Amino acid sequence: AQRILSGNYGKAVTVGAYGEMTYNQPEGDNGELDVQRLVLLFGYKFNDKTQFVTEVEFEHVEEVFIEQAFVNYAVGDNLSLRGGLMLVPMGIVNEFHEPTTFNGVERPEVDNVIVPTTWRELGVGVTGRFPDASLSYQAYIFNGFKSVTTSGDDVVGYLNGSSGLRGGRQKGIKSTVDSPTFSAKLDYYGLPGLRLGLSGYFGKTQAPDDLEELDGANVGISMVGIDARYAFQKFTARGQFIYTALSDTEDYNALTGNNLGSALMGYYAEAGYNLLPLTAKQKLFAFARYENYNTHADTAGSLERNDAYNRTDITTGLSYHIAPGVVIKGDYQFRDNDAENADVDNRLNFGIGVWF
Amino acid sequence: AQRILSGNYGKAVTVGAYGEMTYNQPEGDNGELDVQRLVLLFGYKFNDKTQFVTEVEFEHVEEVFIEQAFVNYAVGDNLSLRGGLMLVPMGIVNEFHEPTTFNGVERPEVDNVIVPTTWRELGVGVTGRFPDASLSYQAYIFNGFKSVTTSGDDVVGYLNGSSGLRGGRQKGIKSTVDSPTFSAKLDYYGLPGLRLGLSGYFGKTQAPDDLEELDGANVGISMVGIDARYAFQKFTARGQFIYTALSDTEDYNALTGNNLGSALMGYYAEAGYNLLPLTAKQKLFAFARYENYNTHADTAGSLERNDAYNRTDITTGLSYHIAPGVVIKGDYQFRDNDAENADVDNRLNFGIGVWF
Amino acid sequence: AQRILSGNYGKAVTVGAYGEMTYNQPEGDNGELDVQRLVLLFGYKFNDKTQFVTEVEFEHVEEVFIEQAFVNYAVGDNLSLRGGLMLVPMGIVNEFHEPTTFNGVERPEVDNVIVPTTWRELGVGVTGRFPDASLSYQAYIFNGFKSVTTSGDDVVGYLNGSSGLRGGRQKGIKSTVDSPTFSAKLDYYGLPGLRLGLSGYFGKTQAPDDLEELDGANVGISMVGIDARYAFQKFTARGQFIYTALSDTEDYNALTGNNLGSALMGYYAEAGYNLLPLTAKQKLFAFARYENYNTHADTAGSLERNDAYNRTDITTGLSYHIAPGVVIKGDYQFRDNDAENADVDNRLNFGIGVWF
Repeated sequence: AQRILSGNYGKAVTVGAYGEMTYNQPEGDNGELDVQRLVLLFGYKFNDKTQFVTEVEFEHVEEVFIEQAFVNYAVGDNLSLRGGLMLVPMGIVNEFHEPTTFNGVERPEVDNVIVPTTWRELGVGVTGRFPDASLSYQAYIFNGFKSVTTSGDDVVGYLNGSSGLRGGRQKGIKSTVDSPTFSAKLDYYGLPGLRLGLSGYFGKTQAPDDLEELDGANVGISMVGIDARYAFQKFTARGQFIYTALSDTEDYNALTGNNLGSALMGYYAEAGYNLLPLTAKQKLFAFARYENYNTHADTAGSLERNDAYNRTDITTGLSYHIAPGVVIKGDYQFRDNDAENADVDNRLNFGIGVWF
Repeated sequence: AQRILSGNYGKAVTVGAYGEMTYNQPEGDNGELDVQRLVLLFGYKFNDKTQFVTEVEFEHVEEVFIEQAFVNYAVGDNLSLRGGLMLVPMGIVNEFHEPTTFNGVERPEVDNVIVPTTWRELGVGVTGRFPDASLSYQAYIFNGFKSVTTSGDDVVGYLNGSSGLRGGRQKGIKSTVDSPTFSAKLDYYGLPGLRLGLSGYFGKTQAPDDLEELDGANVGISMVGIDARYAFQKFTARGQFIYTALSDTEDYNALTGNNLGSALMGYYAEAGYNLLPLTAKQKLFAFARYENYNTHADTAGSLERNDAYNRTDITTGLSYHIAPGVVIKGDYQFRDNDAENADVDNRLNFGIGVWF
Repeated sequence: AQRILSGNYGKAVTVGAYGEMTYNQPEGDNGELDVQRLVLLFGYKFNDKTQFVTEVEFEHVEEVFIEQAFVNYAVGDNLSLRGGLMLVPMGIVNEFHEPTTFNGVERPEVDNVIVPTTWRELGVGVTGRFPDASLSYQAYIFNGFKSVTTSGDDVVGYLNGSSGLRGGRQKGIKSTVDSPTFSAKLDYYGLPGLRLGLSGYFGKTQAPDDLEELDGANVGISMVGIDARYAFQKFTARGQFIYTALSDTEDYNALTGNNLGSALMGYYAEAGYNLLPLTAKQKLFAFARYENYNTHADTAGSLERNDAYNRTDITTGLSYHIAPGVVIKGDYQFRDNDAENADVDNRLNFGIGVWF
């Protein structure tokens, strides 16, 4: 409506943002400069129990997505109900992906190829804590991945060997829902400086009405993840392991002509050290991260594993936090895969990240 | 310009938003989950007389539109001048379309098919009140609907039988203007709890230069609407009736091959009752709405009426306002048309709506 | 992350916007109404030294671009470091393009055809002042224009005779970087009411890896500009002159089939007078502007100059500032070019502009 300015300021509105500008320089080729993402956050606190949060994401300067939009209703101190477009809690980075919260210009590849970050769907759920056990929990019913569509007379699959589940994200865009999926995460924070997480996601893909009766129209998904974050004085470390088992991929590949694996696996471990005195307002982390991830950790039927999908990345560099909320990053990535003639370029990266 | 932060806060800026996340479940088919719309409002009060309001709408997660952008200049207590991209005042919902202001997950279909909500165009106008008569008024000169364009050698029409005028909205996007249209609304608020509205819209469509001399390149539009809203303690009711007469549709259909009717008509009546005590902070409305609307209320020349365009929807459900500004909705829609083998699916809908 | 409202208000967030709604009426044809642009500004002051500014631009209602996004770090009172997506300082309007800062519904054409406003790229730089000399300075390393791409078997060029460098702007969108470009501006503000500027931009275009070895894949660019702004009581004046020399355009045109000139030139001079008393809160400027600009100021090899690219515009009209930050504009443009049968329409323009 043509609402004339009413001044809801100073009360309940939150405005925030985060963003990443990146420079990727592969060996021997041109580099790429990109405003990779800029995300605006708007929130409102309707009353002590009821809040709304939304994030509007602009990717590569000219693409737009509503990334989150959910209502949080606090039933009690340790229990909230949530509904809307929310992040799937799996590993660390899908939930905590602001550039000042992780080392490296680019997010870990495990959180791109195995966990399809930023993974969000429409759903409902509960979050809360068991303070006596130092546990926090989240549990959701989400809409699932889309599996197939038609293009002319062909059945086309959204899931495949090279990008795993990534192409199946529905993101809340007029999304088809046939069967619900279940997602949950437990976090244990009982030891000082340590946070341990256990995530699970279980369900089936969603096929459109005209295809859902075909053999292989849907696959089953069981994803589990464990993660850990640790900080002690100048030292930090984190790591995670994600395993995804897919069922009916043989039928799915027969129907679509794709090469989707029956298991996806990835893990990484990272250590960092703050080179500046703890009394300094700025922080300068030197870090190194080892990642291995494979979208053909297993295959079903006659599908042979593609060794190029079994990748190893070593990333080492610096994260210079010039102010709380502003980071300048630089790193070098040694990248390889298991194929005989692996041709993954090493690359040098620089980035500017902000979060407020 | 590269303006560095100047802190206009607490003075004059307004930030707001509204949004709707919906779940439509037709009988026997897959459902659809969608972030149907999220709209950000920004306003600024330059001085006591001069304000600017804009709304940025994100539809289905990834589409963007500036929905409103106008300057309001208060000449006196009871008279303001306005210019910019503004809503056409016709019926209730085109102006007041935030999800907490109406019952039902979806807006009334009359406000989609007959009034092409959200109907906005660039224009100038006046608004104000006659307090002694308990009347408020709005009057605008707007740009009109676009009528035709060329596609190869063909003349293609934006208006047709199934969607009426909806496809002709120019929305302020590099819009063609040939002749102005006139829009006005009077609201009477003299009886407690009651608000009565009378709307009118009169003008011609806008054809591009190379087609405007052809017979049937433009049609004339006369739309009138009456609406009423009533609230007394736990009881609420509202209704509206819209009638649109179009001239020159026989020529228009001959030129374009379309089947645009010569009259469009729609009305609805709705009653609601708050099931919670008036002292409660939450509200829970049970409601029922009856709608009939027909884009072939009349046809010109040899065009036969399509009975499938004469539709009846009955919607009944609940609107649970868990906080002022947050509503959870659920309803069931019995949907039918006058065709012999009507195949409009009934459906179950759920939604989350916010407005701040 | 699912950040719940933390209230960063009143501290450090800035929210602003500017926008332009325009009505262009060429002689004898239909007019065009457009929400030409609406730009939202968000800024944050992390601490006394560190700020972030971003602008999100919505063009023609439904297109979106991140227009600026940079971190400013104040090393000292007279020296700041900057990095991110920033405006190239060239002439007046590319940096100061909010509608309340210039006369005329449309920006000067020199700042569209010769300076490709809004010209922004990713880069790093320094800004500051030499207060004793009344000088402010900016110096940047920017990414450059893209030159060519492939379409099927053809090499297609982004730069050409009619639009000059405009099509080569990369805007921070996954932009190719091969060689850096240098940009700087000096402003002298030592005389009351006067501001003088000297701008320079030097570098080469950026060709993709597979084309960069071809003859003519890149051109060299040397652009210089001088500008002046003056205000004394009710009188204002401004002007600028831009000259661009391009090298290797003969090879470039041979490779791409384009008709890029080897020199681009443009200048304008404008005077305005406030018709209202200096004590009034409103301002009403009458103004006139003379512009000449030519994308074929010179050509290389056998390419003949196209006289239609040598254009002259005279614009005269009114800018009515109804409040600080809100302007209503109206003007008439006499437009011509040097071709024998020049067919550039004169036109009447109206506009509403806001900035807060």
